[in-house]
Amino acid sequence: MKALVYQGPGAIDWTDVPDPVIQQPTDVIVRIETTTICGTDLHILKGDVPAVTPGRILGHEGVGVITEVGSSVTDLAVGDRVILACISACGHCSYCHAGLYSHCLAAEGASGIGWIFGHLIDGTQAEYVRVPFAENSVYKVPEGVTNQQGVMLSDILPTGFEIGVQYGAVKPGDVVAVVGAGPIGLSIISTAGLYGAARIVSIDLDANRIEQARRFGATDGVNSGDADWKDQVLALTDGLGVDVAIEAVGIPLTLQMATEIVRPGGHVANVGVHGKPVELALEDLWIKNVVISTGLVNTNTLPMLLKLVASGKIDADAFASHHFALGDILDAYDTFGRAAETKALKIVIDA
Amino acid sequence: MKALVYQGPGAIDWTDVPDPVIQQPTDVIVRIETTTICGTDLHILKGDVPAVTPGRILGHEGVGVITEVGSSVTDLAVGDRVILACISACGHCSYCHAGLYSHCLAAEGASGIGWIFGHLIDGTQAEYVRVPFAENSVYKVPEGVTNQQGVMLSDILPTGFEIGVQYGAVKPGDVVAVVGAGPIGLSIISTAGLYGAARIVSIDLDANRIEQARRFGATDGVNSGDADWKDQVLALTDGLGVDVAIEAVGIPLTLQMATEIVRPGGHVANVGVHGKPVELALEDLWIKNVVISTGLVNTNTLPMLLKLVASGKIDADAFASHHFALGDILDAYDTFGRAAETKALKIVIDA
Repeated sequence: MKALVYQGPGAIDWTDVPDPVIQQPTDVIVRIETTTICGTDLHILKGDVPAVTPGRILGHEGVGVITEVGSSVTDLAVGDRVILACISACGHCSYCHAGLYSHCLAAEGASGIGWIFGHLIDGTQAEYVRVPFAENSVYKVPEGVTNQQGVMLSDILPTGFEIGVQYGAVKPGDVVAVVGAGPIGLSIISTAGLYGAARIVSIDLDANRIEQARRFGATDGVNSGDADWKDQVLALTDGLGVDVAIEAVGIPLTLQMATEIVRPGGHVANVGVHGKPVELALEDLWIKNVVISTGLVNTNTLPMLLKLVASGKIDADAFASHHFALGDILDAYDTFGRAAETKALKIVIDA
Repeated sequence: MKALVYQGPGAIDWTDVPDPVIQQPTDVIVRIETTTICGTDLHILKGDVPAVTPGRILGHEGVGVITEVGSSVTDLAVGDRVILACISACGHCSYCHAGLYSHCLAAEGASGIGWIFGHLIDGTQAEYVRVPFAENSVYKVPEGVTNQQGVMLSDILPTGFEIGVQYGAVKPGDVVAVVGAGPIGLSIISTAGLYGAARIVSIDLDANRIEQARRFGATDGVNSGDADWKDQVLALTDGLGVDVAIEAVGIPLTLQMATEIVRPGGHVANVGVHGKPVELALEDLWIKNVVISTGLVNTNTLPMLLKLVASGKIDADAFASHHFALGDILDAYDTFGRAAETKALKIVIDA
């Protein structure tokens, strides 16, 4: 088959590789119909994720059709169209029992990290993929839900909702600020209303992205390039700060921004992937009764979010900015890598 | 009357001042019978808390007898023996409604900080004190509970329990590590069992303090001066880290230690008062699904803890290491200020 193979920092190829085969009784093989590219894939491409070694097929998002099932798989059958969760969860370790699939202890690689696709095992940017722990890691797509909608549920919608909205403890009436209006920021914005946020404030440096955020449900926008950006945010509250500040970028500055606008008793949810330490102003924060959360998605809300996508309550199509054929995935990487210029959000790649 | 008056950095006096008078209908006047000194008072004495201005009577802990009540006070009467909570809470602002008395918006000084005694208004290290919002900020002492026991409920027991144990979300079976075995660390250790901690690990540099911690309920002790201290802590878990790591010192290193020993999905509760920013290893923590909490005590668990002290479930007397007469409070400060040498925990100062 053909697959997108990481060759080392800066180098990827669309090339011939052996077809995947069932390795464990709990595996299935899926023929990929639709995949996409994540910001994390760009980090890998830069060489930021050393656990990814040359020869690895990238990608952790996808929708496809099952072509083969392992001997212990009973709930899934050849021909089922399924969404692949970006997290592979055994379902029976202590972390899975606690719903923390993100730290599944049985995942291959035994790293204690449930994200293994395109990381520790071959991923979804390929014609076929082997899916471990399939009965706990893929979800059948109901009639009426398209592949394009489904692929937004592999990672970005659960990540925004679980690590931003749920970990941020959004509650009815809250003013929620989202720092960063990329795909993850937009997925937070599009799901914050599920817990009754009264105002959803999109904060970004790019006026276009802020405009776009309104289409996803932001009630207000603040350009963080403005000298008085912080005052603008506080003016949208009672003056004490936002109830929930969600970081969706992954650099020290944006986490600091979130801690500066949160009210006493509020929540800061970090969703961004960070590569550096952050100076935390604990001399101010110790007395503020704030909670700062971090996290990798568990994808345990995927079935619930799928229902909301199916019923039209979440507009998953709104994330699709570009379309490419799977054979043109190198062009898709190029377009996604220049997102500031191409205004790429999620690139839908169809086989 | 006589009172302990802050005269500027490094300078306090036991001196004559005017008697306090009722200023608001919700005030009472209390004749102090027992008070004590907090680590925060030493910070003030060093000049670290600029909001405290020369002329301020220090102290935010105390037990005494009501000598006068304001015109709107109906639940309290002259002669009642009461514990003064270190937090003054109006009871009717939005923060008080949410149980966040620590950020009462009506507190005198309108700082949004409920800690005002010995900070923004005159405090409890005096013969008499004016107590604002008395019906929501003092608690009658039942028969059988001594002043010495009661004064441990003004601040340290609620602080350890609320900001350490409750914010740390301790649950049955947890391994809880407490970094620092001073009075606040010991109050955490003595209350972590209330939520069913399986192991309580005291971490400190001082072998004597670790031994002492066992008396308060620590099941294990680790000396953080040992090169392999972290391995020693992990060996008390399944190898993945502690469920809850509680910081009870207030320096960058100890917060970092707490983040290094917490397991994926665990909680870090910061209880220490910090004067400097902290470098947070977010490049490691972003993926760990951890929660970091901070906070000033609300004292809303004071009545519950008082019941546990009354029933003997919490040994409040164990915190009392030294006794002084109120007139000798300058000597008490000297002893408390040299705690490493004098082994002072809480110094009970009786009128």
